[in-house]
Amino acid sequence: MTDAVKPRLFRGLRDQLPEPMAARQWLIDTIRGVYELYGFVPLATPAIEYLDVLSGSAGTEAQDSIFTVKNPDVRPGDPEEPLGLRFDLTVPLARVISQYRDLPRPFRRYQVSSVWRRDKPGPGRFREFTQFDIDSVGVASEVADVEIIAAMCDTLTALNVGPYRVRFSSRRILSLLLKYAAIPEQIEVVERVRTGSGTFSEEKANRPADDVFRVLDKLERVGLEKLRLELTSGYTDKSGDFICGLGLGDDQVAKIENFLDIHSDSRSEVLDRLRDTFGGVEGADEEIDILAGMSRQLAGLGYNDDRVAIDLSVARGLAYYTGPVFEAVLLDAPKFGSVFGGGRYDNLVMRFLGEPMPATGASIGVDRLLAALLEIGKISARRATAQVLVTVMDKAMIDEYLGITFELRRAGVPAELFLGKKGIGKQLKYADAQGIPIVLMVGGDEKEKGTVTLKDLRKGRVMSAEIQARETWIRERPGQIEVPRGELLAAVRSMLAEAEERPAG
Amino acid sequence: MTDAVKPRLFRGLRDQLPEPMAARQWLIDTIRGVYELYGFVPLATPAIEYLDVLSGSAGTEAQDSIFTVKNPDVRPGDPEEPLGLRFDLTVPLARVISQYRDLPRPFRRYQVSSVWRRDKPGPGRFREFTQFDIDSVGVASEVADVEIIAAMCDTLTALNVGPYRVRFSSRRILSLLLKYAAIPEQIEVVERVRTGSGTFSEEKANRPADDVFRVLDKLERVGLEKLRLELTSGYTDKSGDFICGLGLGDDQVAKIENFLDIHSDSRSEVLDRLRDTFGGVEGADEEIDILAGMSRQLAGLGYNDDRVAIDLSVARGLAYYTGPVFEAVLLDAPKFGSVFGGGRYDNLVMRFLGEPMPATGASIGVDRLLAALLEIGKISARRATAQVLVTVMDKAMIDEYLGITFELRRAGVPAELFLGKKGIGKQLKYADAQGIPIVLMVGGDEKEKGTVTLKDLRKGRVMSAEIQARETWIRERPGQIEVPRGELLAAVRSMLAEAEERPAG
Repeated sequence: MTDAVKPRLFRGLRDQLPEPMAARQWLIDTIRGVYELYGFVPLATPAIEYLDVLSGSAGTEAQDSIFTVKNPDVRPGDPEEPLGLRFDLTVPLARVISQYRDLPRPFRRYQVSSVWRRDKPGPGRFREFTQFDIDSVGVASEVADVEIIAAMCDTLTALNVGPYRVRFSSRRILSLLLKYAAIPEQIEVVERVRTGSGTFSEEKANRPADDVFRVLDKLERVGLEKLRLELTSGYTDKSGDFICGLGLGDDQVAKIENFLDIHSDSRSEVLDRLRDTFGGVEGADEEIDILAGMSRQLAGLGYNDDRVAIDLSVARGLAYYTGPVFEAVLLDAPKFGSVFGGGRYDNLVMRFLGEPMPATGASIGVDRLLAALLEIGKISARRATAQVLVTVMDKAMIDEYLGITFELRRAGVPAELFLGKKGIGKQLKYADAQGIPIVLMVGGDEKEKGTVTLKDLRKGRVMSAEIQARETWIRERPGQIEVPRGELLAAVRSMLAEAEERPAG
Repeated sequence: MTDAVKPRLFRGLRDQLPEPMAARQWLIDTIRGVYELYGFVPLATPAIEYLDVLSGSAGTEAQDSIFTVKNPDVRPGDPEEPLGLRFDLTVPLARVISQYRDLPRPFRRYQVSSVWRRDKPGPGRFREFTQFDIDSVGVASEVADVEIIAAMCDTLTALNVGPYRVRFSSRRILSLLLKYAAIPEQIEVVERVRTGSGTFSEEKANRPADDVFRVLDKLERVGLEKLRLELTSGYTDKSGDFICGLGLGDDQVAKIENFLDIHSDSRSEVLDRLRDTFGGVEGADEEIDILAGMSRQLAGLGYNDDRVAIDLSVARGLAYYTGPVFEAVLLDAPKFGSVFGGGRYDNLVMRFLGEPMPATGASIGVDRLLAALLEIGKISARRATAQVLVTVMDKAMIDEYLGITFELRRAGVPAELFLGKKGIGKQLKYADAQGIPIVLMVGGDEKEKGTVTLKDLRKGRVMSAEIQARETWIRERPGQIEVPRGELLAAVRSMLAEAEERPAG
C-alpha cells in the first residue's frame, strides 16, 4: 500500500465533534424557530461565487479575506474569471436580489451557512465559521429595523442566555456628529511613511470624514486618552508603530467628547440629551425623531430599557451601513463582545443593480455565541443522542437484542445496540463516557425468567459518592432494576423521567 | 460609483430559493429525527481539507473531481501543501477517526453537509450538493449493516416517499463470482490507442479483475448485449469511440450470465439459487450464510421482501467497498436511480492509520431525493413560513399593526407585517404569491368598531372558480370575516385549522 497520509487540518480550521455539535444544533433550531415565527423564509446559496461578485468590480478590502478557488473551466487563452468562497451571507443575498427580479418584495429571508475568511487565525478566530442571518430587503421603513431588534431580543430570550443588552444607534446620527463638530468631508492628515533604517518621511494625505467613526469604534478597546491622541496629533504605540492622528482641533474634539458623554440606561434620557447637544444642527430633529419612534414602538411591544438601549457608541465596523445599527452583548460574557449585530444597508445591492435598494438585517456568529454560552454554562454539551444502550451479553442472543433495540426506537426512545467487540464492563464504560443514561442487559438468566435488567448510570454515579463500602455497593446495585420483558418500555420511560428531574451529570 | 457587477453564478452551481428550501429543511429534519432515534451523533468537519487528505498520498481518480483552493499561508520557497474542497463526507470521517484516537469506538455519527465536485455539470448534476451520511466505525459485525439497511427503510418511510425498494448484496459475493467464472486477478486486454488522423494502434495492457464489476455495473444502462461485447471483444459506440473488451471466453461469460440470471423478489429464493450456482466454490457457503443471516435479522424486525431485496447486480461504483453494499430506489421515480446508498468499507481508514478499521455506512443525496419527491408530488414546496399577513391600510396605525403582529407571534402563529410601499390590493397579491393563507386588515372603520377583518385567501381562490358574477363576489366576500379584536387569535386558529383540511392550492 501507499504511505499513510497524516490526518490533520489546515491552520484555522476545526472539526465540530459530537458534544458541542448537539448543543449547536439546538441553538440553530431555536434561532430558526424564532425567525420562522417572524415569517422569514429560508434561502441557500452556493459557497463558491465569482470573485468580482464577492468583492465588487473595483475590488475592496474584503478581497484580502477571500479564499480563492481555481476555476476548473478556464482553457488556455481564456480570461481567468477567478472564483472564491463567500466571506459573509449579505453579499450573496444582494446577488440573489439582483439576479431574480421576480422574487417577492419585500424579500425577508433567513440563511444559516458557513463562511470562510483567510485572515490570520487566532484564539476563537477561525477561518470557517457559521453565520445565521435575517434580512428584510426592499423595506425603507424603520419598522423593519424595529422588527430586527425585536427578533434579536426574542432569539436571545428563547436561547435562555441570561441577561443581555441590545444596543442601537444610527449611522446618520454619526453623520450629524460630523456637522456638529464642523468636520469637513475630507480631512487632511500627515502620515509618516517608513523609509527604511528606522527613519520616516512625512507625507500629506486626505482621509474621508468617516475615518472619525473608525477611530470612535476603538473607544472601548483603547480608552479615551488614546482616542483623543488619534483624533489630534497621533501617537506611537507599544510596538513602535506610529498611529497617524486626524489633526482635529480642540473645539472639534471637545464636541466629539460632548457627544460620547451621552450615555444612559434610559433611552428617553439619551434622546433628550441628544436633542440638547445637537440643537440647531441641520437635519438633527428628523433623525432624532426616527430613533425616538423606534424606541416608542419597541416599548409598545414590551422591549424596554432593561434589554434594549440606545448607545451612540455603536458604529459597527462595516462601511456599508447607512441607517440604524444594532448589536447584542451577553452581560454574563462581556469578553465575547457582540454576538449578534447588524444594521441598515441601503446601498449594498447597488453593486449589482446600479440603483439603491433599501435593506436591513442582522447576523449571529453561531460559533462565537455557542462558545460564550458553553463558557457561562447557559447551554450544555449533550454527549449522546441515545437514551438507552442495549448491551450484548451473549452473542447468540443478538436477534433478541436487535428486537429490543427496535422496539425502543419505534416507541420514540433513541437507542443504540452495542456492536463493538468488548466485554460488558467496557460496554458500561462506553455508555458512561458517551453520556447514555440507561443501560439495558439481558443474559441467559433474564431470558429464562422473561425479564430485562435496566441500570440508570446517572443514579449510580450520584450514589457512588455516598456509598463508600464496596459490599454495600454490590448488594444494593444502585439504580439497577429487573423488570418483566413486557414492562420494558414503561420502565425505561419512568427512568428517563426521573433522570431528567436531576441536574445533568 | 464603480461599474455594476453582473449578478451570476458559476456553471453547475445554483441557489436554493425559499420554496424548495422549506421542503428541503423538512426533509433534513425528518432524516435527522430517524438517525437520532438510532443513536447516531452529529459531526461537522470543515469544507477545506489538505489535498493529500482528500485524495490519498498516491493521488486517486478522486483528485480529478476536487476543487482546489489556494493555500494563503504559503510563502515563496515553502512547499506548496495544496488545499481542496471535500468531495464526500466519508473521507473527512476517516480523517477524524484517525486524528482523534480517543473518540468512542464504535463511533456512530451522522453528518449533513455540502460537498463539491468539479466534474462537468449537466441536468440534475450540480457541482455543489448536499449529502446526509450515517456511518458506524469500528464495527466488524454485519449487524451494523443490517441496522443501516433498517435505517434506510425507516427514513424512506418517515419521508412518506411512496413505494421504495432497498436492494443489497455484498462485494464479497462478486469476488466469489470471479472464482466461479475462473477469471484471473489480472486480465490481459487489447486496447486501441488513437494515433491521429483516425487510425489506431493496438496495445496490450493488464486490467485488474475488478474491472468486470465496473462493466457489470453498466448492465441497467447499456443492456445485456453490449455488456456481453464489453466482456469479450469490445465494440465501437455511437460516438465512434472504441469500448475495449475484456477478452473473456464464452465459458466465462456464460457463468457470469448464470449469475446475473439470479433475481427474484424473494430473498430466500435468491439465496437458494446462489447456493446452487456457487456450490463448491471455495468460501461461498460462508459468504452466503452472512447474507442469509442479514436477511433473517431484517425479517425479524419486519423488513420483508416487499421493501428489502437481495439484488446481486448491486455493485456500487466506489472501489473502497469491501462487504455488504446497499442502495435504495423510489419505485415511482425510477429515472432518479439510487437516491440513497452505501456499504461496508473496512480499508478506507487505513489511508491514515496504516491498519484496517471496519466501517459501514450510507449516504443520501439530499438534492436528488428532493428533486425526485417534488417531481412525484410526495413533498410540496411551501412558499411562506408566515400564516398571517398583517396588512398596512393606514400608516398612522402602524403601532397598532405591530401590536397585532407580535400578539400572533407570541401565540406561536408565524406572522408577517407588510413593510413594503404598496396599496392594499398589491399587499393581497403579495400574500397570495407567497402562499400566506390569511390576510388581516384593520382600517379606521374596524378600529372604531373594535374589530379586525380576516380573509382566507385559499377559500377565496377555491370559491372564485365557482362564483361567476362579479356582483355576487363582492356581496359575498368569500372567505372574509370580521371579528371582535379580542377574538382575533381564536378566529385565526380556526381559519388555519380549516385551511389545513383542504388540499393545498
